[in-house]
Amino acid sequence: MDVPMCTRCGRRPANYYRVSSGEKLCLNCLFRSIEDTVLRTIRKYRLISDDDRIGIAISGGKDSLTLMYLLGKFRRQGKIPRNVELIAFSINEGHPYSCFYRMARVDYVQKLSEEFNIPYRVYTFKELFGVTATDIAHGLWSKGINVHMCTIDGVLRRRAMNIIGRQLGLTKIATGHNLDDESQTVLLNVLSNDLDRFAWFGPRPEIDREGFIPRIKPLRFVREEEIALYAYYHGIPLMELECPFVYSNPRYELKFTLAHWERDNPNVKFSLVSFGDSLANLMGEKAVNVPLKRCKYCGEPTSGDVCRVCELMSRAGLLERYLNHLRTLKLMDTQSPS
Amino acid sequence: MDVPMCTRCGRRPANYYRVSSGEKLCLNCLFRSIEDTVLRTIRKYRLISDDDRIGIAISGGKDSLTLMYLLGKFRRQGKIPRNVELIAFSINEGHPYSCFYRMARVDYVQKLSEEFNIPYRVYTFKELFGVTATDIAHGLWSKGINVHMCTIDGVLRRRAMNIIGRQLGLTKIATGHNLDDESQTVLLNVLSNDLDRFAWFGPRPEIDREGFIPRIKPLRFVREEEIALYAYYHGIPLMELECPFVYSNPRYELKFTLAHWERDNPNVKFSLVSFGDSLANLMGEKAVNVPLKRCKYCGEPTSGDVCRVCELMSRAGLLERYLNHLRTLKLMDTQSPS
Repeated sequence: MDVPMCTRCGRRPANYYRVSSGEKLCLNCLFRSIEDTVLRTIRKYRLISDDDRIGIAISGGKDSLTLMYLLGKFRRQGKIPRNVELIAFSINEGHPYSCFYRMARVDYVQKLSEEFNIPYRVYTFKELFGVTATDIAHGLWSKGINVHMCTIDGVLRRRAMNIIGRQLGLTKIATGHNLDDESQTVLLNVLSNDLDRFAWFGPRPEIDREGFIPRIKPLRFVREEEIALYAYYHGIPLMELECPFVYSNPRYELKFTLAHWERDNPNVKFSLVSFGDSLANLMGEKAVNVPLKRCKYCGEPTSGDVCRVCELMSRAGLLERYLNHLRTLKLMDTQSPS
Repeated sequence: MDVPMCTRCGRRPANYYRVSSGEKLCLNCLFRSIEDTVLRTIRKYRLISDDDRIGIAISGGKDSLTLMYLLGKFRRQGKIPRNVELIAFSINEGHPYSCFYRMARVDYVQKLSEEFNIPYRVYTFKELFGVTATDIAHGLWSKGINVHMCTIDGVLRRRAMNIIGRQLGLTKIATGHNLDDESQTVLLNVLSNDLDRFAWFGPRPEIDREGFIPRIKPLRFVREEEIALYAYYHGIPLMELECPFVYSNPRYELKFTLAHWERDNPNVKFSLVSFGDSLANLMGEKAVNVPLKRCKYCGEPTSGDVCRVCELMSRAGLLERYLNHLRTLKLMDTQSPS
């Protein structure tokens, strides 16, 4: 049987068929192309500049680990400024599944940390908020309020990143969102008729809004399957156990819908992300003109009167406990300014 | 077995379960609710006013026939102004399938026409453009250019409506688009990353742009299945034969995707249409500021240099024949101004 040769180098046998371009690639050219895409994304959208202090949010999955690996590698190679500070951190939400993932990978993160000289620290919801995600879930569920565990995690994790960012003096936080994540987000926002949420979409959202640390997503134009291949062949561990909450997460179904649509339209994910970006531009202009308020409970920036964290805490009957925790933290901060 | 009673009247046994609201309805309350929805749409968006001369575009399907029936009934009942002029018309694209549909239903349209005093006329692509949809398809396909028959029909039908509208002095053209059509359109525009196209979406698009007859869609908040039930029980004929082009139309798959999503989110179609409307508002403001150009071949209004009709004609090798036809028509118009 004739093995087709790589469309790019023409020298090595092809190992991967890229549906979006019709190219057949050898692993070498595939990996180079992935790195090129990430670098082009960083340069085109100016995600990283000279004096940046960038936090890398490590969930423990292949995407965030690949992100840490790539940013470390790029800095060592001088492809991003050598004086950029990289600091990796994880957030432990405090339910057995999140713990399992994070902790099971700490050895590999430590390895990357030493190899690329990227300090690494784990934070917990418990220390940041005084309660775990499980506490909140139980508080809500015991009142018959159905909020998905992923929603609780998501709302608190976004806040946690801002707190950590301010504590560490970060100028940006890089996350491992890939093309599949991003296209799912667009579709979800469309299906839930959430036009406003597009204001925070795009390759470089939340720029320069007080109290928010800008997020950057260097992997957002790379397909999940390509990151998985990159990770596998670079010794980056893949998840061995799926999160039990994944099956009831609305993204789970969209994953298959998108895969199905791809058969007829190989560029559908890129198309969705481009649509989201155009809309982000349009909405971003509008959003900048809306003055941010301060949450009447915790004082964090919010578009309404109460931020989503305090809303969740309040519905779960944990608002007082949370606010007390914040007061204690503030006291600690005042006594030991670092 | 206990038959559940109608959620609205509580007097008659329920015949229909409305997933979007959770209501169980008897046929009486279902039909009243459908008529109420259409009337509310007409009033809320001011689709019809006193001195309107409204064309009803009849494809021959249940939706356009129901639209004709309802507008006729509403006018007779005085629910829309009694002095509104209603004029129904069909467009024969000139391929065997379109003909079949249209012609097979002419008897019923004639019946409605007499019952509600709505004049009715059939136009053909041949008389309007000098060529049939089949001529264009053969022209394109023989050059290996794959354009779907539904695209050809759609592009020419939209133009045909403007020409007919100007000939008949219409102030608006009503089409039978239902909630399912509209939600599919939103999803299609999103998937093909076509932000601009939203400028012409919404319940009352293309208002007051020179050369365009405004379209109104009174049925756009009614689900297709409810229109089908309404039609069935009101003696309005349903399609007996599906169009053979339907299976390769991109909408065909979206139909099932949406039906599938509805199991988890019964309001997904409404949600999509609302999203489209918000976006239409946003884009509408922008579009109004973009001056319309004139097509350099036919002179019709267009956003680019060449309109989509002339683009198709040109690719099919039929541009000269089409322009000659236009010249002849113009001559005829000059000789016999009506």
